[in-house]
Amino acid sequence: MQTVILDAEDVTESTQIAEVIDAVEGAFGAYARGDVQMPAKSYVDLPQYDGDFRSMPAYIETDDWDASAVKWVNVHPNNPDEEGLPTVMGTLIYSDPDTGFPLAVMDATDLTRLRTGAAAAVATRHLAREDATSLGLVGAGVQSHSQLDAISQVRDIETVVISDLDDDIRAAFIDKYGDDFDVQEGSIAEAAACDVVSTTTPVRDPIVEEAGDETHINAMGADAEGKHEIADEILQEAKLVIDDHEQCTHSGEINVPWHDGVLDDDDIHGEIGDVVAGKIDARTPEDGVTIFDSTGLAIQDVAAAHVVYEDAVDGGVGSEFDMIGSES
Amino acid sequence: MQTVILDAEDVTESTQIAEVIDAVEGAFGAYARGDVQMPAKSYVDLPQYDGDFRSMPAYIETDDWDASAVKWVNVHPNNPDEEGLPTVMGTLIYSDPDTGFPLAVMDATDLTRLRTGAAAAVATRHLAREDATSLGLVGAGVQSHSQLDAISQVRDIETVVISDLDDDIRAAFIDKYGDDFDVQEGSIAEAAACDVVSTTTPVRDPIVEEAGDETHINAMGADAEGKHEIADEILQEAKLVIDDHEQCTHSGEINVPWHDGVLDDDDIHGEIGDVVAGKIDARTPEDGVTIFDSTGLAIQDVAAAHVVYEDAVDGGVGSEFDMIGSES
Repeated sequence: MQTVILDAEDVTESTQIAEVIDAVEGAFGAYARGDVQMPAKSYVDLPQYDGDFRSMPAYIETDDWDASAVKWVNVHPNNPDEEGLPTVMGTLIYSDPDTGFPLAVMDATDLTRLRTGAAAAVATRHLAREDATSLGLVGAGVQSHSQLDAISQVRDIETVVISDLDDDIRAAFIDKYGDDFDVQEGSIAEAAACDVVSTTTPVRDPIVEEAGDETHINAMGADAEGKHEIADEILQEAKLVIDDHEQCTHSGEINVPWHDGVLDDDDIHGEIGDVVAGKIDARTPEDGVTIFDSTGLAIQDVAAAHVVYEDAVDGGVGSEFDMIGSES
Repeated sequence: MQTVILDAEDVTESTQIAEVIDAVEGAFGAYARGDVQMPAKSYVDLPQYDGDFRSMPAYIETDDWDASAVKWVNVHPNNPDEEGLPTVMGTLIYSDPDTGFPLAVMDATDLTRLRTGAAAAVATRHLAREDATSLGLVGAGVQSHSQLDAISQVRDIETVVISDLDDDIRAAFIDKYGDDFDVQEGSIAEAAACDVVSTTTPVRDPIVEEAGDETHINAMGADAEGKHEIADEILQEAKLVIDDHEQCTHSGEINVPWHDGVLDDDDIHGEIGDVVAGKIDARTPEDGVTIFDSTGLAIQDVAAAHVVYEDAVDGGVGSEFDMIGSES
């Protein structure tokens, strides 16, 4: 049997973003129904290199498919300046749950952005107004590209307001998306007044101080203790949906106000899986601001990898190896 | 930067077994000194497929090298009969601890056998008589091949006594090793009378009832609760060295007598890392039977992968990919 190797280019070549969004939605629903296995992330801390590795194994069972994989991902913040490498790189082993055979090994650097965009799209599908046409992006780096790619699959986005301090980053965004969308440069407040907003910054003091009356905010940036993008008043008043209670209270957008006692369980509407599974309300006509706090779950990677693998096989993408020597 | 893909054939092509033994010895020593990170294995249990996955991340720092990797390995006992696949398959991602970059992805099916053989060789180096010339193999399957390959690097083995119920397995062994060693077929007792013995069977009732006066036994077979190859009397009287206290008492050779109260900490000489690091005695002239209880540690995989990667790069073996898209 052959194992397919999918490098970064292969991972995105055939993959249909709409399918990734549906698979991630399926994974969230399976999580709510208890049909996943997701051991806690294991950390290998390397203070001598100012970095770490995380090992993220998971299994998902939905009505239509099941899948298992492990993602191995690093965080080395000095990489861009010192090594010319990304801070975060990932590799994923995608295996057949029925036999354990390694069906594919794939780059998980772009995959991580893809599944993160997909999570925002799932939340947007359930929490944003149906007639949303404007998307605000606070932070306009590569993460925001994945946000637009995915969110424009679930809402008819026409106008995009980008807010970023870096001229080059704004120019690159406009160069890439200016033909397909009405891209405007604006302040954080102008971006946050859009129908849908995605924040992808690493800040530790909130920069989003106000939002539109019925804005849906995807809070994607906070991924560690102390990070915090949205003002506490907005979090307190919004319909607040999280991806995972343990991860969000520990390292998500809500981690700082949670530990300060500013937010508690009464302020949290519930987990996105419960929204997807219909256990709790999505947006209702009475709702004002809605917020999705995304930390990123191993099941998102497995779901995205499932689509990447299936689309790659269908498209004849990738390189085959007799990895385990089963044919020798 | 390029990531090297090493399939099963590549993994063994350039790899020097003597180097793997030294690296595994270095890993055991680092473990004793506290210079490793080895989170507990994460399990993904799949009872619907009668199988599971294990995720095994680790980092090792020695005086000469450091290395980090994750091994993702399955156990699906029905594979040989139902799928024509091995029960256990593995894939390993080998990463630069300094940057997190994935240097290599390699098959870890043969690697697991390689590092298991290397562990037995390390134990044999420190616990067997210097003048040992005979090796008994209880169970003569592929695991026993790795035992001979490795142990013959550390002792001048001339005679090999194999004991196995399966005619085809014995014939395959003799076909492979008959020219290089004096291979004899014998009873379990005859194999266990050799200077060095390695047991690689999955039995749950002890089959090794006696041993030579100064035999060193590598007890490799037990890897789950209830498995047990060596009679309790031998374990009680021997100088008993283990690889890891938690793993061995849970699923190693000593797990059954440990839970029955037949063995306790007073019966355990110590961990192999402490022997390697010189914290406790290796074999002394007063010693009779010595036993090494091996369950297999993630640091062994990382150490073996380090050698496989370095030897592959030196030998120009493997296929290069721009996995993370760093050159696009």
